[in-house]
Amino acid sequence: MSGVVYLVGAGPGAADLLTVRGARLLGEADVVLHDKLVSPEVLALATKAKLYNVGKRANGPSVDQRFISRLLVRMAARHAVVVRLKGGDPNLFGRANEEIAACRGAGVPVVVVPGISAGFAAAATLAASLTARGVSRSVAFVTPASARGGADNLHWADAAAAADTAVIYMAALHAQRIVEQLRTRGVPADRPVALIENASSRDERVLRGALGDLPALVAELGEGPAVMIVGEVVAEARAIFADANAA
Amino acid sequence: MSGVVYLVGAGPGAADLLTVRGARLLGEADVVLHDKLVSPEVLALATKAKLYNVGKRANGPSVDQRFISRLLVRMAARHAVVVRLKGGDPNLFGRANEEIAACRGAGVPVVVVPGISAGFAAAATLAASLTARGVSRSVAFVTPASARGGADNLHWADAAAAADTAVIYMAALHAQRIVEQLRTRGVPADRPVALIENASSRDERVLRGALGDLPALVAELGEGPAVMIVGEVVAEARAIFADANAA
Repeated sequence: MSGVVYLVGAGPGAADLLTVRGARLLGEADVVLHDKLVSPEVLALATKAKLYNVGKRANGPSVDQRFISRLLVRMAARHAVVVRLKGGDPNLFGRANEEIAACRGAGVPVVVVPGISAGFAAAATLAASLTARGVSRSVAFVTPASARGGADNLHWADAAAAADTAVIYMAALHAQRIVEQLRTRGVPADRPVALIENASSRDERVLRGALGDLPALVAELGEGPAVMIVGEVVAEARAIFADANAA
Repeated sequence: MSGVVYLVGAGPGAADLLTVRGARLLGEADVVLHDKLVSPEVLALATKAKLYNVGKRANGPSVDQRFISRLLVRMAARHAVVVRLKGGDPNLFGRANEEIAACRGAGVPVVVVPGISAGFAAAATLAASLTARGVSRSVAFVTPASARGGADNLHWADAAAAADTAVIYMAALHAQRIVEQLRTRGVPADRPVALIENASSRDERVLRGALGDLPALVAELGEGPAVMIVGEVVAEARAIFADANAA
């Protein structure tokens, strides 16, 4: 008999942006393997579990993925409820597929519980709809960060330039490349952008500007994970705020 | 003194895929204006609120958006906690911007609470990561459905074709057009697709095939809202399942 591995999206940061199902599973968990960026308030919901920080974070050195996958399989042999708690949503930039493959390969049942990805928390903070009638009905979620050994193509830039709205993860380390690749594809330098650092957390910050300003904007960011939204919807949200303040 | 309007994402269907914050706000709400597709289990959390079904749904006739916006403003004049409960995430294909603009224009404070969009619930059901090392690091969320009066451009097809993975909302009514537009942009007819109807609900269904089969697949769908995922990540997930069954 094997336990079940639950890949649970921890959401963007704020503990109450976890799903009700995720919160319940944390309470039932025997062990929790979590990313470094998951907040202490979320981890506190795992009242009876042994916690393992497997230290994966967006930027910077991370624990070897194969080690995490093997650890999941080993834990499932000994425990009924194994929660793998991942920042945001497990299926967006979370390498869930590698952990799912490892579990399936070992005959361990896997269940995925979705979570709120940082881009949606960022849009909520801005009160900026990612889609808007007459302005945007396509949104690309991309990252320019290519993993070691991953495909190093430019589909991310093609998709970001073609979509009405682009949400760019791990943007801070790649500001110059983002500007170059989007400008090359005809995106104007004055396309509005917003950078949201630590979306939904107490130390959340918002920086606004235009695509051409991105390197300068990024220089103002702190150490927290930041997501970037590019598109006219950002300006629309800003205009709404300006109207409301003028009213 | 005005009340506050909370645009709350109800999530994809299953009541426990609501966020903890969304569940709390429903409990505190004086009034709830909700979409037709929000499940009874989610609405049951609004224990002291008067409920208004404002009947917007993805396909089919909907209540006039300006009526809903005006109603929100009127409710905020009379009640402290007004929840506007929208399927999925308010900022993705939810026309949140129009309601935000109306509230701001009337001086009513608005707070957005993100939710799990159907695409993420669908990916969780498939246990298919939308991104995968060496396979996908761009995901386009698009819809071919152009609202009356909205922009009728083909950015949605450009973005869907450029991204490694495409998640297409309101796909069922536009199957032939999706195939044509993606094929025109070089997407091969054998690109794997999955259609997920009523993602996360008890009557959830999954249909799999290739892009070229889309019209035939859509013919098998029922009446529920369906989301479509196009990309090699769908095949990867299927291969994982096949391996696990063979093992």
